[in-house]
Amino acid sequence: MADKLPLPLIDHAEGQLFLTQAFNIIVEEVLCKGTDVKQKVCHEWKEPEELAELLDLELREGGEGQQKLLQRVRDVAKYSIKTSHPRFFNQQFAGVDYHALAGRFLTETLNTNLFTYEVAPVFVLMEMEVLRGLRQLVGWTEGDGIFCPGGSTSNIYAMNLARYQLFPEVKSQGLYGLPRLAIFSSPEVRMAVQRCMSDYTVERSRMIPEDLDQKIELSKSQGAVPFLVSCTSGTTVQGAFDPLDRIADVCDKHKLWMHVDAAWGGSVLFSKQHRHLMKGADRANSVAWNPHKMLVAGLQCSALLLKDTTNLLKRCHSANATYLFQQDKFYDVNLDIGDKSVQCSRKVDCLKLWLMWKAVGSSGLAERVDKAFVHVRYLVEQMKKRDGFHLLREPEFVNVCFWFIPPSLRGKEGNADYQDRLAKVAPTIKERMMKQGTMMVGYQPLGNKVNFFRVIVFSPLVSQKDLDFFLNEIERLGDDL
Amino acid sequence: MADKLPLPLIDHAEGQLFLTQAFNIIVEEVLCKGTDVKQKVCHEWKEPEELAELLDLELREGGEGQQKLLQRVRDVAKYSIKTSHPRFFNQQFAGVDYHALAGRFLTETLNTNLFTYEVAPVFVLMEMEVLRGLRQLVGWTEGDGIFCPGGSTSNIYAMNLARYQLFPEVKSQGLYGLPRLAIFSSPEVRMAVQRCMSDYTVERSRMIPEDLDQKIELSKSQGAVPFLVSCTSGTTVQGAFDPLDRIADVCDKHKLWMHVDAAWGGSVLFSKQHRHLMKGADRANSVAWNPHKMLVAGLQCSALLLKDTTNLLKRCHSANATYLFQQDKFYDVNLDIGDKSVQCSRKVDCLKLWLMWKAVGSSGLAERVDKAFVHVRYLVEQMKKRDGFHLLREPEFVNVCFWFIPPSLRGKEGNADYQDRLAKVAPTIKERMMKQGTMMVGYQPLGNKVNFFRVIVFSPLVSQKDLDFFLNEIERLGDDL
Repeated sequence: MADKLPLPLIDHAEGQLFLTQAFNIIVEEVLCKGTDVKQKVCHEWKEPEELAELLDLELREGGEGQQKLLQRVRDVAKYSIKTSHPRFFNQQFAGVDYHALAGRFLTETLNTNLFTYEVAPVFVLMEMEVLRGLRQLVGWTEGDGIFCPGGSTSNIYAMNLARYQLFPEVKSQGLYGLPRLAIFSSPEVRMAVQRCMSDYTVERSRMIPEDLDQKIELSKSQGAVPFLVSCTSGTTVQGAFDPLDRIADVCDKHKLWMHVDAAWGGSVLFSKQHRHLMKGADRANSVAWNPHKMLVAGLQCSALLLKDTTNLLKRCHSANATYLFQQDKFYDVNLDIGDKSVQCSRKVDCLKLWLMWKAVGSSGLAERVDKAFVHVRYLVEQMKKRDGFHLLREPEFVNVCFWFIPPSLRGKEGNADYQDRLAKVAPTIKERMMKQGTMMVGYQPLGNKVNFFRVIVFSPLVSQKDLDFFLNEIERLGDDL
Repeated sequence: MADKLPLPLIDHAEGQLFLTQAFNIIVEEVLCKGTDVKQKVCHEWKEPEELAELLDLELREGGEGQQKLLQRVRDVAKYSIKTSHPRFFNQQFAGVDYHALAGRFLTETLNTNLFTYEVAPVFVLMEMEVLRGLRQLVGWTEGDGIFCPGGSTSNIYAMNLARYQLFPEVKSQGLYGLPRLAIFSSPEVRMAVQRCMSDYTVERSRMIPEDLDQKIELSKSQGAVPFLVSCTSGTTVQGAFDPLDRIADVCDKHKLWMHVDAAWGGSVLFSKQHRHLMKGADRANSVAWNPHKMLVAGLQCSALLLKDTTNLLKRCHSANATYLFQQDKFYDVNLDIGDKSVQCSRKVDCLKLWLMWKAVGSSGLAERVDKAFVHVRYLVEQMKKRDGFHLLREPEFVNVCFWFIPPSLRGKEGNADYQDRLAKVAPTIKERMMKQGTMMVGYQPLGNKVNFFRVIVFSPLVSQKDLDFFLNEIERLGDDL
């Protein structure tokens, strides 16, 4: 039988040649062309049916040759949006950092799982160090934390911890039989929090501390047990910061877990000039912070930071799987951190941030944050000088929300159909923008405010030219509306 | 002010040079040396304090030069475990596929988020196609699904869906006021399921259909509302498969959501010869399947597959964030799939699997699965020929669980201290193995069975030599015990 055993199915020389050729395509198509302002953000807009056909997505019985596969790499790059392009202003991620990217390639190739020291010795220690660095910026000299696959998971973990601290029996007995648990959050809470709350009663409260205090009293008087207040540092649309210090007073008074969703805004903590926006964060119990957003670490990189020093995270989430967390190992099993997570397989998300941080230092990251604020100030000043741009409000952060008022609507604010017509401006400009591919920026309505643009400026690749282009391009695309 | 605006902070030429040099190090250190049987799986075992010092992990105010950073890339590679090495048998991931790896590099560089068609046109369509391909193997011609950051998340989603279908009000009102909800799972359910169940009453039932039926009746009679049965295809330790077809009969009878955690075992569906292990999977409501395990797609790649055609996933999870899911877009907004997920930021996990599948076809993936079974059969036969190897049971899958009985313990089964002494064998061999770095395999106790090894054989890089080496090496490391 022995000599009939199948041979290894991977040819290393052939595989490494393919990988090198693919790497060259990636550098050329995504990193060179994809960041070149002479090239488009959206190469060529395609309707889904056409794109599906062009890409020939179908999976078949047989394999394909290397040249065809390289063409597939080229096609995927070609028809994808160039999110690193300096004129991609559409989301809370943008730009590229080459050190972080090298860290990502290394992570992918080492392909390990962050659950035990034996299988991920470097990354167990590295994650601890990166979390320590982030906690220090919050203002904590000790504590705990974990990297999660996004802000929603970080927020869910905070909720798990808060309720486990109050009711440890929930872990073995479930929620049934517990009193009605109530969470408090602001009405503009981002999707990532809203989606996590379906197990609980949710009280939406404007994060005016006095108002919050009253809502908590009312909730208690109605028989609920408030257990968590979720504040936001950097809302998704407007970039607003809740007054953490005063909310902390209310949480202290009622002995509630204070969670700060700083997924978007957390990076201000690097900046001496702007960290005041999160004054009071050190009084929270937990902070969620996504370096994959403003710090350009790359998706996914999301940290949950905890003030706790009692191993709450592990006590709350541990399942003590014997096949991973043997207690008779020859090293300190406290380094087997996998039991802190609800996940079993957990990707390494710390290396990219660590390598970038090593490359530019805390001062380099602070410089990026400060640069973004300067750019936003410039953009806002330019908008005020132009007729067609109307700000929703002065930005607190790097989100600039504005309506573009085309010439035909200027001075017509009193007309009955003004809001209806204004609501159609942003979608039309967006459609033209996508089809011409010149840049990308998002729009949305909010409450009673009709569709407005939200331009987000923070990519380290952006220059003044790009900001001027942005304004000119909005005018060019919308002046005939 | 204009000419004082800060310039872009990234130098592309310098960055691309760094990335290319890092790529070369990665190929050399991780892909060449890291898969070479003449090199070690664990280069040099270090105690945590020593390793932390060697790596100089601390994050500082200032940045570092390129040469120093390249050395850091080298060090991270050097001290990391080589999980692609043919003699890494420690976990449910191993090996390397170069096409998948190229897909991962491209994913990282394109750095987009799978929530809308406008920002991820290629990947929205590609994910649909990959899910369709996987569903087809389950036996469904239509349905739904989503990629999740691991099997735990897939399992949580299945629970969310099952309870939402029964009690849609949970989404707005929380769990309070609902009856006691009960979940049924096998006692050896893997950690990834156990950790997700803390909201509910959990009934552990051996997945003997008759037993399950009785447990459900009993639970109902005690006032609980059973809503989900979670079966396992491929348990973590022993690789056991629950009898899906007969469990489906019980679920039908009680109208319960049937979930199959096939995170580990799902890949048998590619193999004509072995897919019978999951006979009846098509009768389930949901299947969780991690191609990052046996298919070597790379962490993370985890699919939740659904039979549902009523958009349950979106109805259950949607938060309708206006800043992402505008309804007045110029394309079909059903392609904005982000509202199917609890996550807001969601990494692209489909490209690596798609490119690998394109490269080798369904037949190539089937060949890998079949090869693993052949290797396991060989290994088991060899174990039976050698004195020191004692199987826990005949493997159903690619997990081989065995005790190594050192010469001093052979024939001493009747001695009072036999089990105690046997329990110490695996940890000692493991320590020696790690410190010498020659290979890696895990051990654990299970129920009343003392520490035994679990060797997992599926990497496409493995050859007969490696299997023979494995057996010889266990003997070499343990013969004096």
